[in-house]
Amino acid sequence: MALWDKMGLLATLLIFGVSLSLASAERPMRRSLVFPKENDNSYVELVPQKDLDMGAFTLCMRVATELAKGNREIILFAYRTLYYDELNMWREADGRYGLFMSGEGVFFHLPELNTFQTHLCLTWDSKSGMAAFHVDGKRSIRKMYKPGHKVQNGGKVILGQDPDSFLKDFDSKQSFVGEITDVNMWDYVLSDAMIEALHVGKRIPRGNIFDWETIELIVNGNVKVITEEL
Amino acid sequence: MALWDKMGLLATLLIFGVSLSLASAERPMRRSLVFPKENDNSYVELVPQKDLDMGAFTLCMRVATELAKGNREIILFAYRTLYYDELNMWREADGRYGLFMSGEGVFFHLPELNTFQTHLCLTWDSKSGMAAFHVDGKRSIRKMYKPGHKVQNGGKVILGQDPDSFLKDFDSKQSFVGEITDVNMWDYVLSDAMIEALHVGKRIPRGNIFDWETIELIVNGNVKVITEEL
Amino acid sequence: MALWDKMGLLATLLIFGVSLSLASAERPMRRSLVFPKENDNSYVELVPQKDLDMGAFTLCMRVATELAKGNREIILFAYRTLYYDELNMWREADGRYGLFMSGEGVFFHLPELNTFQTHLCLTWDSKSGMAAFHVDGKRSIRKMYKPGHKVQNGGKVILGQDPDSFLKDFDSKQSFVGEITDVNMWDYVLSDAMIEALHVGKRIPRGNIFDWETIELIVNGNVKVITEEL
Repeated sequence: MALWDKMGLLATLLIFGVSLSLASAERPMRRSLVFPKENDNSYVELVPQKDLDMGAFTLCMRVATELAKGNREIILFAYRTLYYDELNMWREADGRYGLFMSGEGVFFHLPELNTFQTHLCLTWDSKSGMAAFHVDGKRSIRKMYKPGHKVQNGGKVILGQDPDSFLKDFDSKQSFVGEITDVNMWDYVLSDAMIEALHVGKRIPRGNIFDWETIELIVNGNVKVITEEL
Repeated sequence: MALWDKMGLLATLLIFGVSLSLASAERPMRRSLVFPKENDNSYVELVPQKDLDMGAFTLCMRVATELAKGNREIILFAYRTLYYDELNMWREADGRYGLFMSGEGVFFHLPELNTFQTHLCLTWDSKSGMAAFHVDGKRSIRKMYKPGHKVQNGGKVILGQDPDSFLKDFDSKQSFVGEITDVNMWDYVLSDAMIEALHVGKRIPRGNIFDWETIELIVNGNVKVITEEL
Repeated sequence: MALWDKMGLLATLLIFGVSLSLASAERPMRRSLVFPKENDNSYVELVPQKDLDMGAFTLCMRVATELAKGNREIILFAYRTLYYDELNMWREADGRYGLFMSGEGVFFHLPELNTFQTHLCLTWDSKSGMAAFHVDGKRSIRKMYKPGHKVQNGGKVILGQDPDSFLKDFDSKQSFVGEITDVNMWDYVLSDAMIEALHVGKRIPRGNIFDWETIELIVNGNVKVITEEL
């Protein structure tokens, strides 16, 4: 918003390879991704600002879905390299939330997603091996997960589908249906207080891997990009 | 309230063709419609300020009912032209909420209505085709519905009954039982922040299709018009 | 925090008998104990500042666990002398919370623990015999429990396991799994207002039996000591 206000910046949004300008806004605006239907071909690629070569991370998003009451998995975030699911975040069929980095996952019992926006963050640190979710600013218990592990560079991040091979082999029964916005990622762990501040609308620190205000999005298939006033 | 205070306006309320004056109030007052019993003949017609010739709208109301836990449909708002249900809002028998414009509807999973007042808003925009509900200030996911469609002029808006033909053929098992107040409508989409402000009591922007403070109501059958202090 | 800020104190943290220094922090830091897995060998001994020779007490902690949805007991605090469970705090299998001092317990119906932190305090006074829990600053009803009783000196306090004999005979099905922090104990009863203030982050009065900011911890087995920013 600071950038937008101070510089009258024309944020460039890449959709289907076409660049679209948003007029410099008096009021803060935010893009939101609407995934209207279950299918196996619609997804949005997020172009990172720097390599996902990470010994720690914080991943945040605002997410709303009516799928949660169902009995199927929902992919929330997928970072896939050629041979590995490097960093996937799931809502499991049994209602738990899972983090998977190249193999077995770690699971959390959190409140159900619903048609209203939930602010969801996930943190992990290689040194301590501690992983935790934050739901609307409140942290879950920490769980030990893959201390010493590193997230590898060289893949692609997508929302909406789970690639079983490199950006292919999608399964409609794992697809995301609903709305996702404000996806930000850092290559370090934010404090509980910082995440609570983000939840209530503070916009710093800006993500150094993904910063939703300036992020380049590549949309594939039936995904609607809405610009909403904040 | 601004009008009331500044001008000491005697708001005119038309009931059964008889005009009734409310004394200019020191405190803000608001009319509320009580539908005491299930039947097929009681309803309130809302007289619009301008034609319902709309490529977008926001419809808000405060509604309370104990029917919601039952297993039947509840009509919440009906705008009927001679041959079409131009814009109907329903609580479906399965608990979902539906918007219908001249044909198939779009459905949302929202919290159940209950004996306490729920502030309910519904927005739709022809350009994007995005429809969404707001429940007590919180927006649901957006759903794609009839992009390019227009709501047609020339019908009547009623609360309490669903007309299967032009203001006839009511079904008591679809009637509304409970209390409705603060019905406002705009021919554009209000922002999330504006709707949250309305929820907590802000009274601007005033509805340009229906403005509850000055709206003309035509009551038919067993509907009680209460004036309550705010 | 006051101490830390004013004196640049190097708090000493004893883990596995090794002393580890935390650099004097600009921001307040707090240690948190993560018990990652159910087992019968992991626990943390809390070294008291003075003898647990008490005719009254207040015991507070912040606790998060995903075990609560299960059907087993969870030990929350155990003070064991050679022959007696002097002061144990439990989440019972039936969901109630129990206080046990050398014999039969007293039980309370409180909200379930969950993956988010709950601030839990327990008070008891020998003179009146009144015992009560405080959950996130709100006090339960008071219950009569062992008026005239005294807590005896000469035992050890541990978190994570229930010793059926003096620091032995642990049962994995009673162990704690999750996260505990901010454990403080006083040999008197704090007022409701003081406990509410502690809940929202006030740090006085400091515990005179256990003061979490300076407490010496002796860790056994698989327990992770995290230092978090407040």
